[in-house]
Amino acid sequence: MNIEKRLAGRTRLMKANAIREILKVVSNPAIISLAGGLPSPESFPMEIIKELTDRVFKTYSSTAFQYDLTEGFLPLREELCRLLETRGIKTEPNAVHVTSGSQGVLDAVAKVLISKGDKIALEAPTYLGALSAFNPYEPEYIRMDMDDEGLIPESLEDTLSKHSIKFIYLVPTFQNPTGRTISLERRIQIARIIQKHDTLLVEDDPYSALRYKGDPVAPIKTLAPDNVIYISTLSKIFAPGLRIGFYVAPENLRQWLVMSKQGVDLHTNTLGQALAAEYLKGDFLASHLPRIINLYKPRQETMFEAITSQFPASFSCARSDGGMFLWVTGPKGFDMIRLYQKSIENNVAFVPGKFFFTDEKEGIETMRLNYTMADEKTIQTAIGRIADTIRKMKY
Amino acid sequence: MNIEKRLAGRTRLMKANAIREILKVVSNPAIISLAGGLPSPESFPMEIIKELTDRVFKTYSSTAFQYDLTEGFLPLREELCRLLETRGIKTEPNAVHVTSGSQGVLDAVAKVLISKGDKIALEAPTYLGALSAFNPYEPEYIRMDMDDEGLIPESLEDTLSKHSIKFIYLVPTFQNPTGRTISLERRIQIARIIQKHDTLLVEDDPYSALRYKGDPVAPIKTLAPDNVIYISTLSKIFAPGLRIGFYVAPENLRQWLVMSKQGVDLHTNTLGQALAAEYLKGDFLASHLPRIINLYKPRQETMFEAITSQFPASFSCARSDGGMFLWVTGPKGFDMIRLYQKSIENNVAFVPGKFFFTDEKEGIETMRLNYTMADEKTIQTAIGRIADTIRKMKY
Repeated sequence: MNIEKRLAGRTRLMKANAIREILKVVSNPAIISLAGGLPSPESFPMEIIKELTDRVFKTYSSTAFQYDLTEGFLPLREELCRLLETRGIKTEPNAVHVTSGSQGVLDAVAKVLISKGDKIALEAPTYLGALSAFNPYEPEYIRMDMDDEGLIPESLEDTLSKHSIKFIYLVPTFQNPTGRTISLERRIQIARIIQKHDTLLVEDDPYSALRYKGDPVAPIKTLAPDNVIYISTLSKIFAPGLRIGFYVAPENLRQWLVMSKQGVDLHTNTLGQALAAEYLKGDFLASHLPRIINLYKPRQETMFEAITSQFPASFSCARSDGGMFLWVTGPKGFDMIRLYQKSIENNVAFVPGKFFFTDEKEGIETMRLNYTMADEKTIQTAIGRIADTIRKMKY
Repeated sequence: MNIEKRLAGRTRLMKANAIREILKVVSNPAIISLAGGLPSPESFPMEIIKELTDRVFKTYSSTAFQYDLTEGFLPLREELCRLLETRGIKTEPNAVHVTSGSQGVLDAVAKVLISKGDKIALEAPTYLGALSAFNPYEPEYIRMDMDDEGLIPESLEDTLSKHSIKFIYLVPTFQNPTGRTISLERRIQIARIIQKHDTLLVEDDPYSALRYKGDPVAPIKTLAPDNVIYISTLSKIFAPGLRIGFYVAPENLRQWLVMSKQGVDLHTNTLGQALAAEYLKGDFLASHLPRIINLYKPRQETMFEAITSQFPASFSCARSDGGMFLWVTGPKGFDMIRLYQKSIENNVAFVPGKFFFTDEKEGIETMRLNYTMADEKTIQTAIGRIADTIRKMKY
């Protein structure tokens, strides 16, 4: 049967996630991969998980294996309120919904809001998974400028003045791919701008708990609560395989997001939600999170030092206070795809930065490096090899 | 912020699942609900699940909590091949993909295939969850005729001759809502018709393992393998809260369904898949399935006998050899919505059948009754009350 002629028009814009394709190439165990975006399995609270399982059997019994509400498992939503309060977001269980990873919220937001040709404003570069969620609904992307302090508020103001924007999508803290964080001053400006234009911001916050230095910065949700959908996940602070994302949306949008989810997966797996509820209820996060930070912090420091000391002076690395990635910019016009190909021959993988830009002419001289999956010694070896490869390239 | 003016055009067709709305009404514990579609929690293998959890920790350790392939957890896909072989479907792990409930496949199929206005051919009545998945992509529905042996092949032939159909959607075995099964003779005819028209059939098979009498009937997938996406789930034979659906699609469609899923939830929760892999690998299904059947079979028999003996002779109940539902048709024009309202006052709930039809003038005199969630005594009480209510109604 000819499937191609049956495909919906929207498939034109659907493409395999470039990083997942790169990850397939680097499944060779001889290659050190700085390409992925996975939390280290050492960061999972495996020694607690058995205890959590026992508590789930005891507390919820067969309920943890039954169909449940599309909105999410109520005991988890109660605990998520406590977690959100530590981030300055005061809410109640009815207003917190659980989705299958934060990917699930992004899909629901796209389905409910994007008509073909609608304009979405994005940071350049931006998170690829968001594009995977948005693309099938055929939006047009408007790129906004960033610098080392994240989104430049003037670029947002300019975008909203010139275009009718359906929503803005930002990862304000330890952004994927750049590791950058929008400062509080800028967040206050951004909050004012979106309120002035009465527009909607999708604030994606998967990484803020992974802070290795400096003080937490308030989510934009706390500064413009009625204009922001705040999205987060337990993937980086508990276990990604359980697929637990959550969000707090303006009240009149919630029912639509729930209806969308009903058609997509009915509800998020109950067992994972019950385990997450017990993890938060037992205050295990409070003792476990410092262990995750102690694991990643030296990896980030090692990578940053290795890059700044070993890469040529014409390469710069954005400073980052947390998250999972560092972002390197080479000299103007430097071809990171070529470096990627040479590095693979040298048994190191990373992600060329151009994949994170919606304009394919941008980002040619950038790269994203992940530091959560390799230990310090491996990171030093890998960065050393990339530095060697750069020195041998003519550019 | 005015959300209404921001909504995408497709939300026009998105509505809350009518049954979920009814279920909210009947959360009152005084009401006996025959309205739901849940497996009984007594059907979950709770005494095995602890053993399975231990095996998962031992066999997969942190892998069961890590991100995994969009296609599904490989050890589970290997076991699903064995399960599919018992249904006459010979395949290999690469060709079996896992989704978040069978709802997840329905969403992916819709996203990849339906352009606005495309025609989908459906049984009348049909499964509501499929409509929830399809509606946001704005298809047009073409209804086909059924009788007590399920879809009438001539109606399919007629539909395919008159219309350009994107795909056909059927629940051939123990259909939700009618409990009907398409006979083997008809399946052979249906297979020939879809091959002749070179069209695509989505065969949804959640219930075939729940057979209480008679012999299994081969899936249409075995009769026209290149023209059928076969969908099934572990929700009725293991645990629905784990959200494990799976499918076998024609090869050139698979990559598109995977790309769609990447944007929706990245992958299905790994822990649930690992538990399911161990459930199947350990052959626990072979010993547990007879227990599920022994639980439901007398409930179905009790309900069928109570209906046929207590409802007026002008009401008929479709015979069914398995699944979770019985389907009752009252005399022409009998208003089941009115009966529903009166029955609620009498503390019994069911689902008026009209909700399962895409043409809102159809099905006014029909009702769906679930027998998996109540024991025999409760079923007798409930059917007795409905019969009383019918007798007191003027019609």
